[in-house]
Amino acid sequence: MSITQEQADTAIAAARKAADAIGVPMNIAVYDDGANLKAFIRMDGAFLGSADIALNKARTAALFGFNTEALYDFVKPGGTSPGFDRTNGGLIVFAGGVPVKDANGKLIGAVGVSGGMVDQDFEVATAAVAALD
Amino acid sequence: MSITQEQADTAIAAARKAADAIGVPMNIAVYDDGANLKAFIRMDGAFLGSADIALNKARTAALFGFNTEALYDFVKPGGTSPGFDRTNGGLIVFAGGVPVKDANGKLIGAVGVSGGMVDQDFEVATAAVAALD
Amino acid sequence: MSITQEQADTAIAAARKAADAIGVPMNIAVYDDGANLKAFIRMDGAFLGSADIALNKARTAALFGFNTEALYDFVKPGGTSPGFDRTNGGLIVFAGGVPVKDANGKLIGAVGVSGGMVDQDFEVATAAVAALD
Amino acid sequence: MSITQEQADTAIAAARKAADAIGVPMNIAVYDDGANLKAFIRMDGAFLGSADIALNKARTAALFGFNTEALYDFVKPGGTSPGFDRTNGGLIVFAGGVPVKDANGKLIGAVGVSGGMVDQDFEVATAAVAALD
Repeated sequence: MSITQEQADTAIAAARKAADAIGVPMNIAVYDDGANLKAFIRMDGAFLGSADIALNKARTAALFGFNTEALYDFVKPGGTSPGFDRTNGGLIVFAGGVPVKDANGKLIGAVGVSGGMVDQDFEVATAAVAALD
Repeated sequence: MSITQEQADTAIAAARKAADAIGVPMNIAVYDDGANLKAFIRMDGAFLGSADIALNKARTAALFGFNTEALYDFVKPGGTSPGFDRTNGGLIVFAGGVPVKDANGKLIGAVGVSGGMVDQDFEVATAAVAALD
Repeated sequence: MSITQEQADTAIAAARKAADAIGVPMNIAVYDDGANLKAFIRMDGAFLGSADIALNKARTAALFGFNTEALYDFVKPGGTSPGFDRTNGGLIVFAGGVPVKDANGKLIGAVGVSGGMVDQDFEVATAAVAALD
Repeated sequence: MSITQEQADTAIAAARKAADAIGVPMNIAVYDDGANLKAFIRMDGAFLGSADIALNKARTAALFGFNTEALYDFVKPGGTSPGFDRTNGGLIVFAGGVPVKDANGKLIGAVGVSGGMVDQDFEVATAAVAALD
């Protein structure tokens, strides 16, 4: 089972609402469990360069099923997997990518957000995924 | 002036409605006048491989300001510009990409649709752009 | 000897004047004899997608020292070198790229123009190179 | 609104003057607000390898609307966004890229300069943008 169009709508609407609430226009991406693009919006005024980052955060979270920032452990100095973040054509290892799981805990996709400070991106992505519960 | 988030919402909603009306799930992409991705949705059941095509149709129409099928004239046998469709990293020269212009006729973006037969893609993309008038 | 900054200025000024004379905003590129970018301008209103084409026309002409349209002979049906235009990361084989030679006939660079019909591109590129005589 | 051909002319002329004043030939690039190339010149004697850097500095500043060196904070040891500089196909996070804004503070493009020491690149890029005020 993969994230549906309706779930993507819900996630993006929640992310937009959360972005508006903090006054930071965001790029918001949804990927499915095949790590393929499902939906995207670049809000008016969002950094153009953050589009690529939002897309890649969602892709990264869909590829591994973890929050993007959790992957930093593998590549940090002394980590087990130096260069891990250069695999798959380049991964994002800071916050803003959050996996989406179904009621049984099975990965069905991911949301990626970029456009603010990292904690803002995280907040908005988390709100998007929470709206799917 | 570039296509807005609200216009992208309107275009995608109209495209989805038109796709539902003919019973063909579509990939729908909106690009701005800088040929950068503004919004995207892959409807449930749409061909996965058509996502790239929808994105590139919108990008192609945004790059040149013409319907994508109009560009075929340049590359058809005996056309003036053999290989034109291999420029810009590869362009789409069949129907489904339609430019969006403002009230003054200035290009502000484009819509690209893929997932059905070419005439269906064209119909849905045209409906999306018509909704912006 | 490679095309100079002053020659690039002269070529671009002549191309802009020729483009204004026919009322077609153009993308104009100058490459040196190392097939590296020397100068570029995208005139206001020029097709965004024609920038890549102008750059590649100049690059193609600099790589081989011929007008770009002359290279079509190699790839046309029955030509000696099918796929020649897919070498070098993709070449342009229609008009608008013109080599620049010094007084001794030695290749020193090239000009590429795109934004109009092929004969307009050719006219503007030729005017640019003629200004260097 | 995007940076115009006349503004690009002004910026490049100012950058060339500033480069001549310090005796360091430069590569100078202008991008628009869609992060697309608007104008470029490689001055005689400028490092060939600095062309790519000037282009990317302008692209980076156009993508995010900040001076390129300001982006280093995100990727420095202990920064919030390790690997940020590998997004968007690779960004430049040292000085020499400066955004261009209109009278209302809206981003309309960027200038990138490379060919000297970083502080020289910064000085020349800053002079180019100042000429647009």
